Amino acid sequence: MDIDLPHLSADRRYKLLTALVIPRPIAWITSVSAEGVVNLAPYSFFNVLGNRPPVIAFGPGERGPGVLKDTHQNIEATREFVVNLVHPEAAEVMHKSAAPFPANVSEVAALGLELTPSQAIQAPRLALARVALECRLHETVRVMDNYIVLGLVQHLFVQDGIIDPETLRMNQKSFVAVGRMQGPGIYCTTEHTLDLGPMPTPEQALVKS
Amino acid sequence: MDIDLPHLSADRRYKLLTALVIPRPIAWITSVSAEGVVNLAPYSFFNVLGNRPPVIAFGPGERGPGVLKDTHQNIEATREFVVNLVHPEAAEVMHKSAAPFPANVSEVAALGLELTPSQAIQAPRLALARVALECRLHETVRVMDNYIVLGLVQHLFVQDGIIDPETLRMNQKSFVAVGRMQGPGIYCTTEHTLDLGPMPTPEQALVKS
Repeated sequence: MDIDLPHLSADRRYKLLTALVIPRPIAWITSVSAEGVVNLAPYSFFNVLGNRPPVIAFGPGERGPGVLKDTHQNIEATREFVVNLVHPEAAEVMHKSAAPFPANVSEVAALGLELTPSQAIQAPRLALARVALECRLHETVRVMDNYIVLGLVQHLFVQDGIIDPETLRMNQKSFVAVGRMQGPGIYCTTEHTLDLGPMPTPEQALVKS
Repeated sequence: MDIDLPHLSADRRYKLLTALVIPRPIAWITSVSAEGVVNLAPYSFFNVLGNRPPVIAFGPGERGPGVLKDTHQNIEATREFVVNLVHPEAAEVMHKSAAPFPANVSEVAALGLELTPSQAIQAPRLALARVALECRLHETVRVMDNYIVLGLVQHLFVQDGIIDPETLRMNQKSFVAVGRMQGPGIYCTTEHTLDLGPMPTPEQALVKS
């Protein structure tokens, strides 16, 4: 099946890309509007892209033609946001926070969630998040009609017990994350893992297994 | 556990980010050098970031201080690459292709893999890949010492049976993908899924479940 992707409708392109580029990590973003309303919404066109210094990117899309989403408007206004990671017990309320609430309604309050102050920025994180990346806007890159928001990670919160402070190894059992698959509503978790061992040398890679 | 991420060593930052921002999709990239050598390597600082037009990003990192990786050098030289997606049966050879082979050695040949011509670009795709995105370099964005490669998807290959041609729904059983977790060597698969249903309206989101 060969698909001339650029010439499909935006809706069909979106369906194909979200079905096939999987699993996608979820940035469950808290941001604050110029008026002080805390917005919460999940984005899966998201990832870390480098660590010199730590930089993340997400593609917010648009609310409608030419209309920025609340998260994106807030970040342009206040230049700060928190990427909260999602564990399975939080999946259902995360999914609800994708509902198109008006800009003057805080999804955090509407859904009965609690906030906690961040360490390095003014935008708060979610109290229930086990992992949160406090970010400052570096720049927004425009690629045709796409916006790509680039954020520098200023501070990292990790619930105690997830990371070994010495080795920095993560205990897979202590932090299971939810990943995004196709819409509407299909997610996966990182519960079932494969361990393929250390990165091989070229000589090791050539040994038949 | 509050971590002042920017002030850790690059190695410790990398360990934390790769352990916690999960699951990451894998771009198993085929690219061609100016001399015609086909390179193959996996990257997990990668995702789709938008669909107007379809744009993907990946962070190649560096081979050493100031030295670009082969994939990145090839893309700057030929401005083309293929993002092959990874299914579980291909995970082991994908992991081997991360070995630091010299630039004049093709991982494809060394690992006994086969190539297939692409439709829209000169760079070939992997014959075993069930999904492949043919990309052209749009631009490389520099964020301090990070490179972010932005590619526009020109064409999409999907093995027959994975996507319903009418609805464009993906049959979860017909395409399981491998995601990246912490190093060295931990991966997950998209085999176990959650279905949280359609995106709720604000009214539906407020109904207690």
